[in-house]
Amino acid sequence: MDDKHIKHFTNIVGEDDIKSDKAHLLAYSYDATRSRYEPDLVLFPKNELEISKILKYCNENKIVITPRGAGSGFTGGALPADGGIVLSLEKHMNKIIELDTDNMVIVTEPGVINMDLQKFVEEKGFFYPPDPASQDYSSIGGNVSENAGGMRAAKYGITKDYVMALRAVLPNGDIIKAGKRTIKDVAGYNIVGTLVGSEGTLAIITEITLKLIKKPLMNKTSMGVFDNVQDAMNAVYKTMAQGVVPVTMEFLDSLTLKAIEQKFNKSFGEAGAILVVDVDGNNEEELDRQLEIIEKSFKENKVSEFKIAKNQQESDEIWFARRNASVSLSVYGNKKINEDITVPRSKLPELLKEIDKISKKYDLPIPCFGHTGDGNVHTNVMIKDKNDKELLAKGYKAIKEVFQATIDLEGTLSGEHGIGLSKAEYMTMAFSDEEMNMFKNLKLAFDPNNILNPFKMGLISKNESSLPSFISS
Amino acid sequence: MDDKHIKHFTNIVGEDDIKSDKAHLLAYSYDATRSRYEPDLVLFPKNELEISKILKYCNENKIVITPRGAGSGFTGGALPADGGIVLSLEKHMNKIIELDTDNMVIVTEPGVINMDLQKFVEEKGFFYPPDPASQDYSSIGGNVSENAGGMRAAKYGITKDYVMALRAVLPNGDIIKAGKRTIKDVAGYNIVGTLVGSEGTLAIITEITLKLIKKPLMNKTSMGVFDNVQDAMNAVYKTMAQGVVPVTMEFLDSLTLKAIEQKFNKSFGEAGAILVVDVDGNNEEELDRQLEIIEKSFKENKVSEFKIAKNQQESDEIWFARRNASVSLSVYGNKKINEDITVPRSKLPELLKEIDKISKKYDLPIPCFGHTGDGNVHTNVMIKDKNDKELLAKGYKAIKEVFQATIDLEGTLSGEHGIGLSKAEYMTMAFSDEEMNMFKNLKLAFDPNNILNPFKMGLISKNESSLPSFISS
Repeated sequence: MDDKHIKHFTNIVGEDDIKSDKAHLLAYSYDATRSRYEPDLVLFPKNELEISKILKYCNENKIVITPRGAGSGFTGGALPADGGIVLSLEKHMNKIIELDTDNMVIVTEPGVINMDLQKFVEEKGFFYPPDPASQDYSSIGGNVSENAGGMRAAKYGITKDYVMALRAVLPNGDIIKAGKRTIKDVAGYNIVGTLVGSEGTLAIITEITLKLIKKPLMNKTSMGVFDNVQDAMNAVYKTMAQGVVPVTMEFLDSLTLKAIEQKFNKSFGEAGAILVVDVDGNNEEELDRQLEIIEKSFKENKVSEFKIAKNQQESDEIWFARRNASVSLSVYGNKKINEDITVPRSKLPELLKEIDKISKKYDLPIPCFGHTGDGNVHTNVMIKDKNDKELLAKGYKAIKEVFQATIDLEGTLSGEHGIGLSKAEYMTMAFSDEEMNMFKNLKLAFDPNNILNPFKMGLISKNESSLPSFISS
Repeated sequence: MDDKHIKHFTNIVGEDDIKSDKAHLLAYSYDATRSRYEPDLVLFPKNELEISKILKYCNENKIVITPRGAGSGFTGGALPADGGIVLSLEKHMNKIIELDTDNMVIVTEPGVINMDLQKFVEEKGFFYPPDPASQDYSSIGGNVSENAGGMRAAKYGITKDYVMALRAVLPNGDIIKAGKRTIKDVAGYNIVGTLVGSEGTLAIITEITLKLIKKPLMNKTSMGVFDNVQDAMNAVYKTMAQGVVPVTMEFLDSLTLKAIEQKFNKSFGEAGAILVVDVDGNNEEELDRQLEIIEKSFKENKVSEFKIAKNQQESDEIWFARRNASVSLSVYGNKKINEDITVPRSKLPELLKEIDKISKKYDLPIPCFGHTGDGNVHTNVMIKDKNDKELLAKGYKAIKEVFQATIDLEGTLSGEHGIGLSKAEYMTMAFSDEEMNMFKNLKLAFDPNNILNPFKMGLISKNESSLPSFISS
């Protein structure tokens, strides 16, 4: 990058917070996708004003810039796909600003880790429900940018349901506020709604106000064994139609169960599917009422075994299978192509049938597990040997067919991880030309020079962009 | 309007569904604001395709067009502020399309009346919570466009919390889908979030998919009398901090209570504020547990009288005051300037103090009542005689000061009604130049020719628009 630019950025952030040495460029070149794109420069701004100055300069000089939280994303949202600057929010912008107990909201900088925030509010008697699997290391800013989900979504919703207000810097450097500490606010466009899940392509979020609720006092775990997925799902529909929304309702398919059997020397008999169901509430009666309805719904749908955990130990035993589902899959190979497709929950049995067909067609095991309450299926195309290029190519063909089946069943390419770079090529399978055009117009309304996290979500290709070629040195 | 245009629109909708006679133009010239703007033409499209054709032609010929549901809005959102076409969705696009019980969603056309939809789903055992005061006559399409709230918002949220998917026609005629029947969907931008509350300025919504929940089986009413608003609000904070979220928690201030006393010959003694609190749940224990916490919280905050309704009759008696709050205000004058300002609930006592000061300064009674759970205050500047122009001018000065006080307390110009025409002039009090500019860019990204419901929300003035002057005949 031009010395003139380096000098300008040094003036803004100070010498300690601008890095272009090889170690830093390498450290900020990857995320959970394991792809690598090196930036030209890494900046660690201390506050919103510095971010504003940086963006204003980038916009005027057409320098691309990619915001980055904890770098734990699964789709490359934080990767500098075309070099330029990585703007890291983890070093300085990682403080909880205020817990407002009367309004039951928390105000935080984007770099705070999800679990740290959860623990902080729970110590004060509150509850922040969104619990992405990455909760131990992903940042709230990343969660908001990707609209992260989690296991508790069917009962408590996802990140967007908790974001009440944002402060953000637009690509031109303008600092804006959106939303309020109020449930109701209908003045002006819903910019909070627009920015949530926008994958860091429309603005850099600098402050987040989240709604909190009160944590239920207790929970209980139950488990049902079914011959097949259809029975299990019928039990789920029946349960929910009676007003019981379990806090988690996880399913494991037979291939996943076989993997756990093999890996951990357990036996699930002839189980075609297992449901692990937690209920929560504020007193025993409330839990028991829910469990009663669950048991009845399960029995009406041919559950072959139903168990309620009597204590924490029994609960842990039931959860053992679900917790170890992912690692067990290594029995099928050393590479998994895993996706987070989601269909309306009524379509889940049909989707699993389609996946089974695809599995047979390509002769690749595709174990599935996930969240029945919200139709979110972790789909794992297993590759015996990751060095077998032919097998790997077959795997990617299979996953493309899984996406097509998902779309045909009115599902979505991504329930939790976003599009980023990894799924960019599939966007036109899911969206019409008109819809892609609308997305592109929305992007350009916020970022007319396409400097902010460009080339993500499959919207504007490098050929279409007017960005100068000195970027991506 | 040019005969050529009339002929084209007739070809699209047929002779029965295009009207330009005086009676129709008059009938479609008003809404609940009582302002009047006559359109040049009223169209009643039968389906999405007709709407697409109409918009495409309007866009090509720069003819302004204003979508209209039931015309019950309080801010002029459905008024053709500059003539052109009113596109009415009430005549043909008023059917419920599908109730999907497994996924617990309902798919509906925009013209369906909120209460009809509520009744329809309740008959099938489901619950659609958003209950704007206009629920008996406002349409779901209007509710989505204004992001309508209601009394149950603190517990159950507002319209945006229930919209899962939309079909819509963009100003260029493109038909788009947004969202899915899934809780999780993070592929592409959150267009559902962007369109909700956009007041019909970005797209015409043609189909709406709403989340349903299960209706709680029972509810109970309670009431607390307090010496002042601060005590009442402290009781509210205390209640909610213990995890009890009443389904409604309405307050009436002393001026409102005095009006009810006078109008209905009741007595509330020296009450400074009353809270009317309903709880709901699935069994007696659940209700009693909530009422216990409420009673305790109220007593800890100097409630002078606390009552739980033993039956429906007693509940109706308690609700009598709240239900008749609005009509009672006529004792103060024959004109009320009423606004739906909202502040974080912790700021409610301070806001009411500021309103009291403004009331004294202008020597005008400003009775207030509303929803404590979400800080939404119905503020009524009372004018003794609506023909007294001087008094009326004073009233509007007072309401402007109320808006300023609201904004200073981190509140919003509108909790429920939107901006439309009525509040357009106050937008720059609430939003910075940068934020106004962002709104304008968003508008133009969807509607580059500014043909769709233009001149609303104070974004693009007539002087700035390139619309030809033949419009607004």
